[in-house]
Amino acid sequence: MAKVAVVFHSGYGHTQRMAQSVAQGAGAELIGIDADGNLTESGWESLAAADAIIFGSPTYMGSVSWQFKKFADASSKPWYTQAWKDKIFGGFTNSANVNGDKHSTLHYFMTLAMQHGGIWVGTGLNYNNTKASQRSDLNYLASSAGPMAQTAGDASAAEMNPGDLETARRFGARIAELASRFKA
Amino acid sequence: MAKVAVVFHSGYGHTQRMAQSVAQGAGAELIGIDADGNLTESGWESLAAADAIIFGSPTYMGSVSWQFKKFADASSKPWYTQAWKDKIFGGFTNSANVNGDKHSTLHYFMTLAMQHGGIWVGTGLNYNNTKASQRSDLNYLASSAGPMAQTAGDASAAEMNPGDLETARRFGARIAELASRFKA
Amino acid sequence: MAKVAVVFHSGYGHTQRMAQSVAQGAGAELIGIDADGNLTESGWESLAAADAIIFGSPTYMGSVSWQFKKFADASSKPWYTQAWKDKIFGGFTNSANVNGDKHSTLHYFMTLAMQHGGIWVGTGLNYNNTKASQRSDLNYLASSAGPMAQTAGDASAAEMNPGDLETARRFGARIAELASRFKA
Amino acid sequence: MAKVAVVFHSGYGHTQRMAQSVAQGAGAELIGIDADGNLTESGWESLAAADAIIFGSPTYMGSVSWQFKKFADASSKPWYTQAWKDKIFGGFTNSANVNGDKHSTLHYFMTLAMQHGGIWVGTGLNYNNTKASQRSDLNYLASSAGPMAQTAGDASAAEMNPGDLETARRFGARIAELASRFKA
Repeated sequence: MAKVAVVFHSGYGHTQRMAQSVAQGAGAELIGIDADGNLTESGWESLAAADAIIFGSPTYMGSVSWQFKKFADASSKPWYTQAWKDKIFGGFTNSANVNGDKHSTLHYFMTLAMQHGGIWVGTGLNYNNTKASQRSDLNYLASSAGPMAQTAGDASAAEMNPGDLETARRFGARIAELASRFKA
Repeated sequence: MAKVAVVFHSGYGHTQRMAQSVAQGAGAELIGIDADGNLTESGWESLAAADAIIFGSPTYMGSVSWQFKKFADASSKPWYTQAWKDKIFGGFTNSANVNGDKHSTLHYFMTLAMQHGGIWVGTGLNYNNTKASQRSDLNYLASSAGPMAQTAGDASAAEMNPGDLETARRFGARIAELASRFKA
Repeated sequence: MAKVAVVFHSGYGHTQRMAQSVAQGAGAELIGIDADGNLTESGWESLAAADAIIFGSPTYMGSVSWQFKKFADASSKPWYTQAWKDKIFGGFTNSANVNGDKHSTLHYFMTLAMQHGGIWVGTGLNYNNTKASQRSDLNYLASSAGPMAQTAGDASAAEMNPGDLETARRFGARIAELASRFKA
Repeated sequence: MAKVAVVFHSGYGHTQRMAQSVAQGAGAELIGIDADGNLTESGWESLAAADAIIFGSPTYMGSVSWQFKKFADASSKPWYTQAWKDKIFGGFTNSANVNGDKHSTLHYFMTLAMQHGGIWVGTGLNYNNTKASQRSDLNYLASSAGPMAQTAGDASAAEMNPGDLETARRFGARIAELASRFKA
């Protein structure tokens, strides 16, 4: 079995709930980035040992939160020796709107993974909305680079859309399966 | 008054209807790119004479249609002499899903405008979705780089969302106003 | 005359020197983001009063530094009331390599400006490299969205390329001219 | 051994030469997109049978050539049934300048691969330019998402930079190796 780690920052608990769904699907360890943008030493060790690393961040002002970016900047240390080369990478994000530049966040995750010499895996979910489509459908938000969730600005984490969370869970499962296949 | 031109490709009529809303808001001339990716000579002359150029394309396979791209490649002729420098530019897109990589299309439009030495104007519309938000709200799709429309894959142009079309109309008006102010 | 502000973060002095060139061209005020990602209150006031805001950051791990991102996240306060709407925006970046994902940094700047309802201005400089092109040519790095500088990882700010700095200076002048024309 | 296919469009022969280097490294079949943006039927069959698909295009006006985009749009047929799901993907591009928005082309390739449910592999090459760096160094252009080549506008394909071509060759080898490992 591949070892998967989810490293994420959450401002108000929504991205954390999404991270839990991803981790549940992947059988992954959850590694939180704190409010100052720091990881524990054991968090860094888990990332070093992982076969797959999944990034998670809310989308704030058109990209990852500054706390996630502080983690990304600190990852220049493993980058320098390409210590994370050939790991599997993926990423997910939540924001208050259906678009709201979440694509920009996911493409930043991809850029970061490529700098680390990684291998990027997206949702692997098709989408072709029809009039009969429901908000709770799998991948209703129609993202291929990684799962998106949308939670209204005045909705709590408990009110997150079940389809978005199930999309996140399946994405986690996909990462774990591909990482295991790649490791074998 | 500034002269505004909307140059667009439409595969099945949805982007055309969106173009009409933008043009109505802007008092703009509509210039269609045909099914072979060509413009008439008078279309090119209108673009040369315009103070503002607005790009429109469906999002197909994660970016503009090939017909729009053929137009973009042909615009290397005015690019070569920077004939479109300092014009105002904007862009819009429609696809079957709420995301579906429409952000990628808009960022391509921005890249093209920058190569032409242009000035980019987005929707200028804030968004901060709440639980009370309605699909027909202005800028419900929450895009800042340019207006997005989403029309289900089995819905006709006549069935487009009125909020999306009103967002397009106001964007046209914004471009015309800023172009006039800039021209003065 | 338009009031232009350059708000930047610099890790090792290279982006600061580039910021000085931009500010010289624009007749702009320089507003530094500190090592903790904070601005002074008077810095925020200058941004509120400016007709044009120019962003500057090194490219670290594929995007702006976390300190710049912390500033961007804090700009959600003026964003909330769209207080910066219709200002002119631009941006610039330096890194150790000719590419190194600097385009990603510039597109993040554009995304941020669009969220603020701004108007984006790029370099307005054509490029069409030939065998006779020199590293010190204007816009040798061939960027349209905003000026780029490249300074080897072991070179000091004093060793920056004069062509890159002149590109930055002209960009500043362009922003000031367009902002003045737009303000009139 | 994994089966690798390189599908590319070349306007003036430079991208073709780069494609040959990639194909040499990968032991891949070369599939040309013609001047009308079309593939032969046997080209489509080779793509269907491949374990890995590598995209190649010049960067024209800030993204792939329209001929490549026509191929991408036609790939909506395999996309519809997700026939290319879980294949390995990569991409490369050439243009006349060191930047010139080549990053935009590579990110479009990534977007296309993600829509197909693919797995993206970049150069896996670190970069950290110093004053001693030479133009012929491996990955001198410093791209992680995929190899870039830069060939002056007045230089023939025969005059392409040997470091750029070697970077392309090693990228091909990397794709073949990872695809074989993934297939096993």
